[in-house]
Amino acid sequence: MIEDKTPQRTSLSDLGEFGLIEHLTKNFEITQPSTLKGIGDDAAVLDFKDKKVVVSTDLLIEGVHFDLSYMPLKHLGYKAVVVNVSDIYAMNANPTQITVSVAVSNRFPLEALEELFEGITLAANEYNVDVIGGDTTSSQKGLIISITAIGEADGNEITYRNGAKSNDLLVVTGDIGGAYMGLQVLEREKQVFQVNPNNQPDLDGYAYLIERQLKPEARKDIRTLLHALEIQPTAMIDISDGLSSEIIHLCKQSGVGCNLYEDKLPLDPQLINTCEEFNLDSTTVAINGGEDYELLFTVSMDDFDKIKGNPNFTIIGHMTQESEGIHLITRADTKIQLKARGWNALQQE
Amino acid sequence: MIEDKTPQRTSLSDLGEFGLIEHLTKNFEITQPSTLKGIGDDAAVLDFKDKKVVVSTDLLIEGVHFDLSYMPLKHLGYKAVVVNVSDIYAMNANPTQITVSVAVSNRFPLEALEELFEGITLAANEYNVDVIGGDTTSSQKGLIISITAIGEADGNEITYRNGAKSNDLLVVTGDIGGAYMGLQVLEREKQVFQVNPNNQPDLDGYAYLIERQLKPEARKDIRTLLHALEIQPTAMIDISDGLSSEIIHLCKQSGVGCNLYEDKLPLDPQLINTCEEFNLDSTTVAINGGEDYELLFTVSMDDFDKIKGNPNFTIIGHMTQESEGIHLITRADTKIQLKARGWNALQQE
Repeated sequence: MIEDKTPQRTSLSDLGEFGLIEHLTKNFEITQPSTLKGIGDDAAVLDFKDKKVVVSTDLLIEGVHFDLSYMPLKHLGYKAVVVNVSDIYAMNANPTQITVSVAVSNRFPLEALEELFEGITLAANEYNVDVIGGDTTSSQKGLIISITAIGEADGNEITYRNGAKSNDLLVVTGDIGGAYMGLQVLEREKQVFQVNPNNQPDLDGYAYLIERQLKPEARKDIRTLLHALEIQPTAMIDISDGLSSEIIHLCKQSGVGCNLYEDKLPLDPQLINTCEEFNLDSTTVAINGGEDYELLFTVSMDDFDKIKGNPNFTIIGHMTQESEGIHLITRADTKIQLKARGWNALQQE
Repeated sequence: MIEDKTPQRTSLSDLGEFGLIEHLTKNFEITQPSTLKGIGDDAAVLDFKDKKVVVSTDLLIEGVHFDLSYMPLKHLGYKAVVVNVSDIYAMNANPTQITVSVAVSNRFPLEALEELFEGITLAANEYNVDVIGGDTTSSQKGLIISITAIGEADGNEITYRNGAKSNDLLVVTGDIGGAYMGLQVLEREKQVFQVNPNNQPDLDGYAYLIERQLKPEARKDIRTLLHALEIQPTAMIDISDGLSSEIIHLCKQSGVGCNLYEDKLPLDPQLINTCEEFNLDSTTVAINGGEDYELLFTVSMDDFDKIKGNPNFTIIGHMTQESEGIHLITRADTKIQLKARGWNALQQE
């Protein structure tokens, strides 16, 4: 048996803009009761009744935000949606719709765009959001994705960045630093591959970290969980740029300080092992590595009993008076001022 | 007196992402009662009470949608907003908010972005929309702008593309074809300039056409006017891709045909003169040239008396049974089938 390994390539210009949009969007179904009209008119029409509306937007550029040499297009489509709905969850709101705009250069065949939209569709189903509009056009270079996410919440549920009070507990969901170390593993394998293209990638033992980088999930469960526990966070943000950067945002907007405890940081064992192998300090990775898409929030001390012991939550510090500053308390009990170095800065170290 | 003609150039990297966003967005004011929270959190928060919400999005790419060699950045920022709010007006809704995402390569200094945002601010003021969010990032090549516009309307006002009925009148606002001819004039001057950079552009006599291309306005007055005249259009769309393309959209979505009358097309005298000079057929330009951002709508025959004689409106045809097809009736009374050649196709003729 001889297999035809030539991948099918259909040129985008064969379809034209309207044909392309129709082809790519035909699988999107409307399931949210707030969506009155989705794709197909000058604009979508939504009805949120007495709910408040929450809106967030992100622009992703090839070579800046993602590298297609190790990011499969389907994963990229999925992640682009995750990044945006994560912002809606960070308001303690429920995502309901997204718009998706894509620009591609001629080097992408139709099949590549289909893969991208397959990932977008998967994520839209997973997070129960309707794709209600967008734009498909050509770019001069590379792939560009712009997603706007829309969500809904009752007015009293919405959680801003500016409500943290001194003595509030600082809580993070899940574990952190994994997405950054996943990227380090992928970068290393890319370099090995560039030296010797016959080399097979060695990704055994890094599965969790790579998944955190290539297929992150937004914490859609937390809103329900907080509701069930009758916890109203005082402030909340999602971890996209890195824990220290997000803590500084919360502190500045709330007018408080913070003590973050190194020994409380939730790290996966695979992260600790891989940091050792790469000769990187796991605390530095955990507080400066970004793209974890976990939620970081503050709660009143009164909620301590509801938070402690819940496997989804880790209390990593507490808020202080603004004048006390923003510090990491190390295992050796020294105080180090937190700086927002974020993702890019760390890579240059 | 010696003038320092060196333009000031501040590198974007001096500011960093957060500093840049803060710098560029500091002039945006919140004026819409529906905006509870604008820029500065994970997402904006809006409250539309019992109104319906209308959402539209567009992605503009340098070299595809605009050419900076004749499009000043301030005009580009203005136009990017206009294009989007025009889609909201085309739903017979009122734009209230926009999000603005921008990606730029390193070749742009801060001052260039400031100019772009000056145009965005001007348009946001003119159309009374709040800038509630966005993203600023670097691109690998060129300038990329993604805008999402949000608007509000009562449920019974919203006008879709699919409500046109046989015998309805087809109405267009303003005049058409001007933006396309403005582009032709600019392209010609660009070519002259490329041959002889000392040549001064000769734009006398083309001011109206060039303004239609470089500083188009969306028809924010039409919604108020229709309301005052107690007219509820049966279907509506804005003219971005060209009249024939938009008529075909209305017909297909409404399941009707159309007779469009060549002698009714509203053409500015400057358009007619310039078409003669360029040896182009003004009807072809009017029906296939895009970017006019006028509104095209259908009304019941009963509204004829309210429409006729109003200088803002021109009745250019009427809808027919679907089986009769979509035709242009020429001055010589011959029937030509309308085809959606739109903007790009026309340029290749």
